[in-house]
Amino acid sequence: MNLKIALLAGDGIGPEVTNEAVNVLNTVAAAGGHTFTYTSLLIGGAAIDAHGTPLPEETLKETLASDAAFLGAVGDNKFNSLPPSERPEAGLLKIRAELGGFANLRPATAYKALADNSPLRPEITEGVDILFVRELLGGLYFGQPRAWDKTTDRAHNTMVYTRHEVERVAKIAFDIAAKRDKKKVTSVDKANVLECSQLWRAVVTEVAKDYPTVTLEHQLVDSMAIHLMNRPRDFDVVLTENLFGDILSDESGVITGSLGMLPSATLGGKVNLYEPVHGSAPDIAGQGKANPIGAILTAALVLRHSAGLNAEAKIIEDAVVKVLEAGYRTTDIARGDIAGQQTVSTSKMGQLVLDQV
Amino acid sequence: MNLKIALLAGDGIGPEVTNEAVNVLNTVAAAGGHTFTYTSLLIGGAAIDAHGTPLPEETLKETLASDAAFLGAVGDNKFNSLPPSERPEAGLLKIRAELGGFANLRPATAYKALADNSPLRPEITEGVDILFVRELLGGLYFGQPRAWDKTTDRAHNTMVYTRHEVERVAKIAFDIAAKRDKKKVTSVDKANVLECSQLWRAVVTEVAKDYPTVTLEHQLVDSMAIHLMNRPRDFDVVLTENLFGDILSDESGVITGSLGMLPSATLGGKVNLYEPVHGSAPDIAGQGKANPIGAILTAALVLRHSAGLNAEAKIIEDAVVKVLEAGYRTTDIARGDIAGQQTVSTSKMGQLVLDQV
Ligand SMILES: CC(C)[C@H](C(=O)O)[C@@H](O)C(=O)O
Ligand SMILES: CC(C)[C@H](C(=O)O)[C@@H](O)C(=O)O
Repeated sequence: MNLKIALLAGDGIGPEVTNEAVNVLNTVAAAGGHTFTYTSLLIGGAAIDAHGTPLPEETLKETLASDAAFLGAVGDNKFNSLPPSERPEAGLLKIRAELGGFANLRPATAYKALADNSPLRPEITEGVDILFVRELLGGLYFGQPRAWDKTTDRAHNTMVYTRHEVERVAKIAFDIAAKRDKKKVTSVDKANVLECSQLWRAVVTEVAKDYPTVTLEHQLVDSMAIHLMNRPRDFDVVLTENLFGDILSDESGVITGSLGMLPSATLGGKVNLYEPVHGSAPDIAGQGKANPIGAILTAALVLRHSAGLNAEAKIIEDAVVKVLEAGYRTTDIARGDIAGQQTVSTSKMGQLVLDQV
Repeated sequence: MNLKIALLAGDGIGPEVTNEAVNVLNTVAAAGGHTFTYTSLLIGGAAIDAHGTPLPEETLKETLASDAAFLGAVGDNKFNSLPPSERPEAGLLKIRAELGGFANLRPATAYKALADNSPLRPEITEGVDILFVRELLGGLYFGQPRAWDKTTDRAHNTMVYTRHEVERVAKIAFDIAAKRDKKKVTSVDKANVLECSQLWRAVVTEVAKDYPTVTLEHQLVDSMAIHLMNRPRDFDVVLTENLFGDILSDESGVITGSLGMLPSATLGGKVNLYEPVHGSAPDIAGQGKANPIGAILTAALVLRHSAGLNAEAKIIEDAVVKVLEAGYRTTDIARGDIAGQQTVSTSKMGQLVLDQV
């Protein structure tokens, strides 16, 4: 098959991890006789530097004309003084909105080989396999009105959800849960305080009725922040609004041991958007210290969700496990105090995975 | 000295833990020749049941005429179908607003005796001593407009902050940090997306200039959710807006091992409000399973912040440590697999602390 992929490498470590992911993706595709073509496009700080805007017209046009979008990371401290609407992150939020994907899938998986990398005890993380389904186009991120009024020295943002927005993301969460072993959806809200959350809870409860094989539970966001650390094995699919998902999925990164390990896929729109969960980490950019595994596992999600190549996706995921079990570590997951480990660079890690696929 | 305390025991386990806390408070006060008097008042679900409103006029009037307010917990699942404005929690939010305290102090402290109760490894939690300063009267909790419009099936809430609101809570955080060993404030926001957070960050940065001995760092809320688990010892005073503080202070409860251990004090208004961090836990109410230590440590905060009795506060805090070190545990912190521990009831735990003060 043919797949036209828009490459939005972005800022900081974005380009280096994207590079490794594309190598792996290409090798797997070629082996199966598939042709993947790539168009490199500017986004974020890199686009501001070149064109004065975090999402140039051309990037948007080309991405909308692609079969999938692969994004590295955006953000750079040098833009910290700009208002949100002009920052690198605005490019990310705008492309998310334009591509239209509203269901952001983020796994939090425990790897045996990395059990010592989590601040959580191994008996807590063992066997954890959580999938966050984070609503990505609503809530405080996009709600209007929003402003920092400098004359009154008052700032406000709007959290907003419609029934339709909740319904469509809830359906994806239940569809996925119905195919998993535990068949459980945990919906997160703050329904004891927020009207948005009351709507959220009511709609999710309704959607659940169409999925008799799936168990639904509701948790308040504050309690959930505790439960995810105390008993992560109890969760399966975790459904959240935008900001709660941002916070809780990052928090749950400690189960895996490093954010650098985590992939994501955003489905439901015109073009699926794939991004590792980690940020641009400008402090380590260009030093070969970045962990490319999050991006490489994101490449696996491209195969699974945009190419229907499930077996090939699995090959990449298994390769990552093998490389970790062989003791190879990038800086973020290296533990100098553990024997049998070897710290490797970004490109070496990419090569090691490539050797396994 | 004399102190007139409004007792708002509330729902679920609220009354039982409040009872133990008052016993301890009274004993310590009497020993020092102080006279503390108490007025029991209804709030939350208990007030809805009796008077159809979660905050009756009389409760408010009496509390405003007191020197301090001591609240147990509010909330009961039987009110889940009511809109936020009519639920038990509305009584809590209204009394918070009326009393005017905007700085909610919540410690996250590691106890040696409870090191095995945290899902985090002991080498991670050892020596952790974090104080959250959570803004309590702003943000999404109180922002207008807010509604769930059932005709359009759209709900919205407003996150709003003024310079004044940020300034006053930041000053409290820096005042406290200046007196602590690490002298560090970590301010939490989502300034890469929210205008509210941009205002927040700008004002906190300005306030910091008046505190040359205190170090200020900014963290995004999603990253902070990770750092608090990976390297909690690096933090000292953590300053947050209302909802971020709700989530992160609960999450950090896992450092201590149980939410049942954590006290809070809300300062800056007409009457200080004291509440344990835990909720009403209706499922275990009346069974003697609740942990009264959060409430008892909250009593210590009454002594410290409303009575200026620092030594007496310390006596209570030390008594709690001794009881824990002697191996006594309520259900929430009991570990059947560890030798030398004895599970005790709510009242027995209260008595044990009392015996030590
Ligand atoms: C960079 C930022 C805007 C983004 C978000 O908050 O969505 C990031 O934290 C993420 O989780 O993908
Ligand atoms: C009960 C609820 C309204 C409250 C809050 O969110 O503030 C509680 O979670 C807390 O943290 O004190």
